[in-house]
Amino acid sequence: MTQSSISYVLLADGLFPSHPQALACLEKAHKIVCCDGASQKLLDFGKEPDYIVGDFDSISPEVRVRFHDRLVHSPDQETNDLTKGFRFCLGQDASNITILGATGLREDHTLGNISLLADYATYLPSIRMMTDFGIFIVVSDSKIIKSYPGQQISLFSIDPTQQITSYGLKYPLNNRPLTNWWQGTLNESLTDSFRLDISHGSLLIFQCY
Amino acid sequence: MTQSSISYVLLADGLFPSHPQALACLEKAHKIVCCDGASQKLLDFGKEPDYIVGDFDSISPEVRVRFHDRLVHSPDQETNDLTKGFRFCLGQDASNITILGATGLREDHTLGNISLLADYATYLPSIRMMTDFGIFIVVSDSKIIKSYPGQQISLFSIDPTQQITSYGLKYPLNNRPLTNWWQGTLNESLTDSFRLDISHGSLLIFQCY
Repeated sequence: MTQSSISYVLLADGLFPSHPQALACLEKAHKIVCCDGASQKLLDFGKEPDYIVGDFDSISPEVRVRFHDRLVHSPDQETNDLTKGFRFCLGQDASNITILGATGLREDHTLGNISLLADYATYLPSIRMMTDFGIFIVVSDSKIIKSYPGQQISLFSIDPTQQITSYGLKYPLNNRPLTNWWQGTLNESLTDSFRLDISHGSLLIFQCY
Repeated sequence: MTQSSISYVLLADGLFPSHPQALACLEKAHKIVCCDGASQKLLDFGKEPDYIVGDFDSISPEVRVRFHDRLVHSPDQETNDLTKGFRFCLGQDASNITILGATGLREDHTLGNISLLADYATYLPSIRMMTDFGIFIVVSDSKIIKSYPGQQISLFSIDPTQQITSYGLKYPLNNRPLTNWWQGTLNESLTDSFRLDISHGSLLIFQCY
């Protein structure tokens, strides 16, 4: 992150973060954009949203009145609140976006939100999602990723025709597809970085704290 | 379930269930098989495991001694504890298996365990996973699924070449692939059942409580 970069947190309406690293990211953010009902969770935590995006079906009349000048109305029924929030951040001055609160409750929301991250990365490759257990990032082509020895790493192909080669992981992949979500789980970084070469498309990486 | 059916719960080492429906399933089970460290969580809840499967790296010496005649040693490094537990259940007299405790902590474990359910269903189509928010089942070919009006339904294709047609869902699918995990989320049942026709392979269904 450069000194002049503007960091946004996009707070989804899942489980409010509790891990110190996720909370540190929330504290340091220049702007916090809340998906609808997540604004109440942020207020309960003791912070104020800079913007609230959605159709406001999940916020109280008090919040509506108090933050009337921070509401970004987006009634589009064809997309969900997380995508509305992401589109809003993209239209602002965000140089990086971290999604928080996107997992930990309904598992179908968790799966959907994680896969949306891969879509968002086509517009903003540096986007990441921090949970209470680790960080999801998205990589394409070839990339060296910072790590530490023994860090737990999992890889998820959304496109199972993709071939992956790894360097610096305990269980190396050699031009191999990951046709099932479990096949790339429970790997481990051997040193302070690892490298992935990906034939096409993008790959979801989960790095435990 | 017929009167003579033998119901097994396979308890994974994720978040211990808290939803009444998941706990009712645990209470009614004829046999409870714990994946390694899940045995301690079950004991803390006030119940005893019938079997503990794994390499026992996550259980205390006291539990090892107390349940020495219920330990099923499986040191295979090529597979995880959930799969070890599933294989054990299959080799017993289980006529149905419900997986509990497989989600709610590390998201990579959640994703891996959900996709393993689809693998297990090729051996035992009736297998299901109950979470604190709903039930995952796996269907193939054509199937009518019991529901209730307004029930939240999400569909996940592990094979994105699969074509799906739905009847009785609010947002109908017409011979459509689900190439991304979010594309089949947030649907809704219109009546007391819905039907899915699947071109090939199997499909994960999540039904909220």
